[in-house]
Amino acid sequence: MQNFTYQNATKVIFGKGTEDTVGAEVKKCGKKVLLHYGSGSIRKTGLYDKVVKSLKSAGVDFIELGGVKPNPRLSLVREGIDMCRKNGVDFILAVGGGSSIDSAKGIAAGVNYNGDVWDLYMRKGTSITALPLGVILTIPAAGSETSQFSVVTNEEGWLKRDIGYEFIRPQFAILNPELPFTLPAYQVAAGATDIMAHLMERYFTNVRNVEFSDRLIEAALVTMINNVPKVLKNPQDYDAWAEVMWTGTQAHSDLLGMGRIGDWASHGIEHEISAIYDIAHGAGLAIIFPAWMKYVMKHDVDIFVQFAVRVFKVEQDFHNPEATALAGIAKLEDFFRSIGMPVRFSDAGLGDERFEEMADKCTSGDTQKAGNFVQLGKEDVYKIYQLAK
Amino acid sequence: MQNFTYQNATKVIFGKGTEDTVGAEVKKCGKKVLLHYGSGSIRKTGLYDKVVKSLKSAGVDFIELGGVKPNPRLSLVREGIDMCRKNGVDFILAVGGGSSIDSAKGIAAGVNYNGDVWDLYMRKGTSITALPLGVILTIPAAGSETSQFSVVTNEEGWLKRDIGYEFIRPQFAILNPELPFTLPAYQVAAGATDIMAHLMERYFTNVRNVEFSDRLIEAALVTMINNVPKVLKNPQDYDAWAEVMWTGTQAHSDLLGMGRIGDWASHGIEHEISAIYDIAHGAGLAIIFPAWMKYVMKHDVDIFVQFAVRVFKVEQDFHNPEATALAGIAKLEDFFRSIGMPVRFSDAGLGDERFEEMADKCTSGDTQKAGNFVQLGKEDVYKIYQLAK
Repeated sequence: MQNFTYQNATKVIFGKGTEDTVGAEVKKCGKKVLLHYGSGSIRKTGLYDKVVKSLKSAGVDFIELGGVKPNPRLSLVREGIDMCRKNGVDFILAVGGGSSIDSAKGIAAGVNYNGDVWDLYMRKGTSITALPLGVILTIPAAGSETSQFSVVTNEEGWLKRDIGYEFIRPQFAILNPELPFTLPAYQVAAGATDIMAHLMERYFTNVRNVEFSDRLIEAALVTMINNVPKVLKNPQDYDAWAEVMWTGTQAHSDLLGMGRIGDWASHGIEHEISAIYDIAHGAGLAIIFPAWMKYVMKHDVDIFVQFAVRVFKVEQDFHNPEATALAGIAKLEDFFRSIGMPVRFSDAGLGDERFEEMADKCTSGDTQKAGNFVQLGKEDVYKIYQLAK
Repeated sequence: MQNFTYQNATKVIFGKGTEDTVGAEVKKCGKKVLLHYGSGSIRKTGLYDKVVKSLKSAGVDFIELGGVKPNPRLSLVREGIDMCRKNGVDFILAVGGGSSIDSAKGIAAGVNYNGDVWDLYMRKGTSITALPLGVILTIPAAGSETSQFSVVTNEEGWLKRDIGYEFIRPQFAILNPELPFTLPAYQVAAGATDIMAHLMERYFTNVRNVEFSDRLIEAALVTMINNVPKVLKNPQDYDAWAEVMWTGTQAHSDLLGMGRIGDWASHGIEHEISAIYDIAHGAGLAIIFPAWMKYVMKHDVDIFVQFAVRVFKVEQDFHNPEATALAGIAKLEDFFRSIGMPVRFSDAGLGDERFEEMADKCTSGDTQKAGNFVQLGKEDVYKIYQLAK
């Protein structure tokens, strides 16, 4: 196990009806609030009205910025920063999924940064402070509700990049498992895939002697495998949604990654797909993760055997670890297919014409390696795209 | 799953050599520090010198109060409160195991309380603030390093009682798995039993649909079962100690109990033993927990079957759930015995002459029920003592 420092102070308020506490929570944190949200689904579901009512009855003064899109855009982050500066905003409330939260974090980190916020995402500048923010989560997926990360897409060149600062973890995260009841099935499945990818990125590590966190991650993966089909079958299954939502948060709170070095190549390799084609991040991960696994498996077949046996209950072939490992990967593909995810580019109607370009961008022209479990160059990434064709 | 609120802001600094950061960490939190510790083992191991050196080189002004005993005493807590008030202490650093930390928390909660600190433990008063505190942990056991609890024993009548306030969670907890290398085997085993009891108290619940936390608790228990024998065999096994130490912290950080209602009867039933006989809390738990399990098993045999199969890999007898459940309890007893713990009063050289008195105290004269999974009266508690005779 590696040395580590872990602190996650986000207050999680979990359960039925918890969105009604938002006014009181915000009141503790800020005087002038930016309410930030997406394309209007929160208006259809009535959540918007509930939030506004709760804020008003708590006497919270707020302004609004809606219109966050999936793969949240830099232009809106810049607009939010401008609004916050002009209006003296001291707290941001994001209502929605990972896109709204990541956009809010971008705004929060940029407000006090003396320069263009994109510099932070391109590592050309660094932030030392952010506006505090709070979250009402509607889509279990990104884990951004307690994480230190924000991923934003720059429309000029469709570059998708992230920042990670401890001080952009939300002050509070309100999680009501009833809120995802109305999500489209495809979005549910893409979100679930993202959650599982966060777990698997941490799982496949070269760090030895990490039994406890191995087992925690396996616990989370098995819970997802058991409960995602339930919420797809019955979108009003509160109990199954509660499992998915709580697991999704812990999958990316980083507790389960402590003492390990995660890989994160699949996320980087996928980001190039969803940046160019604007498909759901989770769908891109369902395409990439199995291909990545097949490509790197021989680097440490034992960890893939452990994954197959403990997570997917594969009957171990003790004389043939590779067969066991491959059976586990096949089970993962079967699972993704069963929840309606693509597992090949062709499943998503995408061709191979931009593989070269994506591999180039992913590795910054073959100057930066992707991943930690195995460090991948441009040629490796290209081959992984090919495996997923 | 039940609604819940979870926040644990303690910063965990984990790994080799991390105690050397203590001066810098304390410097961020306080100007005048009380260094609080036990009976002198930290002097023997050289940890005391390291801590003092780190504090001095960071320019931290501190005073000292040593002498904390196992089952920490109210008299010393009162002495600490007096010292803090007289010297304007604004931060407490506890170095040691759960006893030193619990004693420090009692002092922290009592300093600004306008009355006798024992009132807090007897629920005759309540605290609304505490001095901040930090911790260097030397004994994985109580989980007090990130918990909101403190257990103290009043020598007048040997009453052992607890408090729980969010604001007594430590600001930071320094965990170096090398520090327990020098612990006596009996203390290691007692600590491990305490950790496992924290997990099992949360596991046995009447709340349904808690799959994720069921699996997290099972992950922690299996990790303990695999690694405690390793540290007993080779006390310098860093990797195994790292598993035990990190699991011990998460066993009582309360993350693994979210959405559930824990039982805690065994802790209460045990407290009467260690308050009277001054045996290790963990040893008392090894005696009580299996007896409690046998006594309450029929209330929900399924959860005991799940425990037996998933935690102890018992071959399930599908036609006889009770046999499977009992096999799991027998395996737990075997495990406790294998690490040198008593599993009967007689193993610890204790008789039955005070069972009546202990059952009476545990239930406040049969006016307060013990536990949540099954609510136990005085007669029930007496029978559990008898089962453990």
